[in-house]
Amino acid sequence: MKITAVIMAGGKGERFWPKSRKSFPKQFLSLTKDGETMIQKTVKRLLPMVEMADIFVVTGTAYRDLVREQLSDLPTENILTEPCSRNTAPCIGLAAQVIEKKYGEAMMLVLPSDHLIRYEEMYIDTLQQAVQVAEQNQNLVTIGITPTYPETGYGYIHFARDTSLEMNSVYRVEQFVEKPDRETAKQYLASHHYLWNSGMFVWKTSSILWNLKQLMPDIFDGLERIGDALGTAEYDAVLTREYTAFRSESIDFGVMECATQIYTLPGSFGWDDVGNWLAIERINATNEYGNYVEGDVITIDTKRSTICGRKRLVAAVGVKDVIVVDTDDAILICGKDSCQNVKKVIENLKICNRQELI
Amino acid sequence: MKITAVIMAGGKGERFWPKSRKSFPKQFLSLTKDGETMIQKTVKRLLPMVEMADIFVVTGTAYRDLVREQLSDLPTENILTEPCSRNTAPCIGLAAQVIEKKYGEAMMLVLPSDHLIRYEEMYIDTLQQAVQVAEQNQNLVTIGITPTYPETGYGYIHFARDTSLEMNSVYRVEQFVEKPDRETAKQYLASHHYLWNSGMFVWKTSSILWNLKQLMPDIFDGLERIGDALGTAEYDAVLTREYTAFRSESIDFGVMECATQIYTLPGSFGWDDVGNWLAIERINATNEYGNYVEGDVITIDTKRSTICGRKRLVAAVGVKDVIVVDTDDAILICGKDSCQNVKKVIENLKICNRQELI
Repeated sequence: MKITAVIMAGGKGERFWPKSRKSFPKQFLSLTKDGETMIQKTVKRLLPMVEMADIFVVTGTAYRDLVREQLSDLPTENILTEPCSRNTAPCIGLAAQVIEKKYGEAMMLVLPSDHLIRYEEMYIDTLQQAVQVAEQNQNLVTIGITPTYPETGYGYIHFARDTSLEMNSVYRVEQFVEKPDRETAKQYLASHHYLWNSGMFVWKTSSILWNLKQLMPDIFDGLERIGDALGTAEYDAVLTREYTAFRSESIDFGVMECATQIYTLPGSFGWDDVGNWLAIERINATNEYGNYVEGDVITIDTKRSTICGRKRLVAAVGVKDVIVVDTDDAILICGKDSCQNVKKVIENLKICNRQELI
Repeated sequence: MKITAVIMAGGKGERFWPKSRKSFPKQFLSLTKDGETMIQKTVKRLLPMVEMADIFVVTGTAYRDLVREQLSDLPTENILTEPCSRNTAPCIGLAAQVIEKKYGEAMMLVLPSDHLIRYEEMYIDTLQQAVQVAEQNQNLVTIGITPTYPETGYGYIHFARDTSLEMNSVYRVEQFVEKPDRETAKQYLASHHYLWNSGMFVWKTSSILWNLKQLMPDIFDGLERIGDALGTAEYDAVLTREYTAFRSESIDFGVMECATQIYTLPGSFGWDDVGNWLAIERINATNEYGNYVEGDVITIDTKRSTICGRKRLVAAVGVKDVIVVDTDDAILICGKDSCQNVKKVIENLKICNRQELI
């Protein structure tokens, strides 16, 4: 069966302000020293398993040119644009329609565009195993991440052994659970029956479309009308009309939490969601003082800090555990404990209607 | 007797990098919200006592235009330029020569250009009292500052009561002492017989020239040759030749530590030497979080910090006790405990021969 990949690249990524902006979200940033952007890495690591011609990127209209620019080998028709953001369920449904119209039945690997994977071979191995599970019946497969600490910022997957399955390392999903509080997260970790929800899914087009039809019939009908218009002169108009009318719904809430035949494979391939500036020192090498430094930077008595310079000299003297990010029109100085509060700067900018800085 | 003022404005002020540069030292910076520069404030606070026509500024050739620009009311001929830096003894000697040639005997108030005074009326009162002491005999008068804590960064004046003087609040100087260690500074503070050496002096031209002749005859001779050339076509050439040949010597070491008839008046007029970035929060009002902020700045959960923005937005999130100073080509992020280490950045820039940033 044809294996396709759907890369979801509609995210805003406010947590990497000031480098990320509304017009330039995280998936288009290079956050590692090799200069590759997050979406370029996402595509590249799939190539051992999926041909470039079978990789689809779903993104906002505003990011179409960025995708073209950064993924110059990707066929232009594989960039699917959303007229507006409607969360992941319509996004995935649109891709399923397009792929089904093009190939008939096909396997879909649905993947975020802005995560990092350290062990790419193991990642491919896991995806291949997921494909085997997804080939059977109408199975929906999600890749869970084996937790390493009681994170409160992710959703969790409660899994159980399924004796009917004749494969190792594949588990039945009992329940998707929302971001837990600290105490609950600790219990999840201790129970050994919870995985992090990474937002990576594997299924056949027929499986996801059947589930959408059962569980979100309104959206399914709209998607069908979009699918019927594919390749016609009316496509853009139909897409805009139908898509705008969709309610916002995540695939987790709209499908995964209600569907049956959901399986999970635990991934231990060095996944990092690169959730905020704190990730930079995790995903890059730091120097002997624990600093990650790029650009024109002088550090004096500075420790455990991340300093991203740009055109101007950044001099850090006697600071510890801070993150400094310079851009042409804004600079962020952030305590490492406060990365989650970078979004408050954006809230402030919104209140003051300073669109040029958002 | 004519009262003149000599403002010494040759300092480099590396400790206010990146705002201060070799080409733009501290005395020409505005470090308070009123927009006045340090040297402008220095001149302005003297005007109740000294006429503008009697104020002389001694500075480096490179800063001549800056002085002209910032002190547009000052007669151009009152800007005395030093061909090179030779510390305060030659600087003061040069001014004494020029003033004596112009007015004959006159009173000289010798003052730094980059300090701040909070209580300007009390300052004038103290200077006027100092003039009364300096009018007598060949007295040299220095203004001491009543210490408020055991500072280790200043020299101290050891003083004693002089029963021969018929004035209150004037003391005989026993000794000038170098910057003490912490323990010694504590003893000085406890003894109640030490003042901070502020580098402000009051004397007659005849008194200082007589002392220079006795204590630094080599420099005195050169100064006389410069004085003889005053108003002639050879002045610049003579000045350059003689001045370049001078050894570097401070007035403290060259004269004050050896002279007799030295008196001190304790000043309690809210003196601040504005020694480094830490001074900004002392000399400006801070907000309810203890922050001093200027320019385009957003603070989130930020406390006891000084943030000087310029053209770009500076966003501080979750930082405490830091100093951030933005300029067009460099930004400093400095822990408040590390202000003394800003000079290490300059050392680093010197080693890398990055003159444009120094």
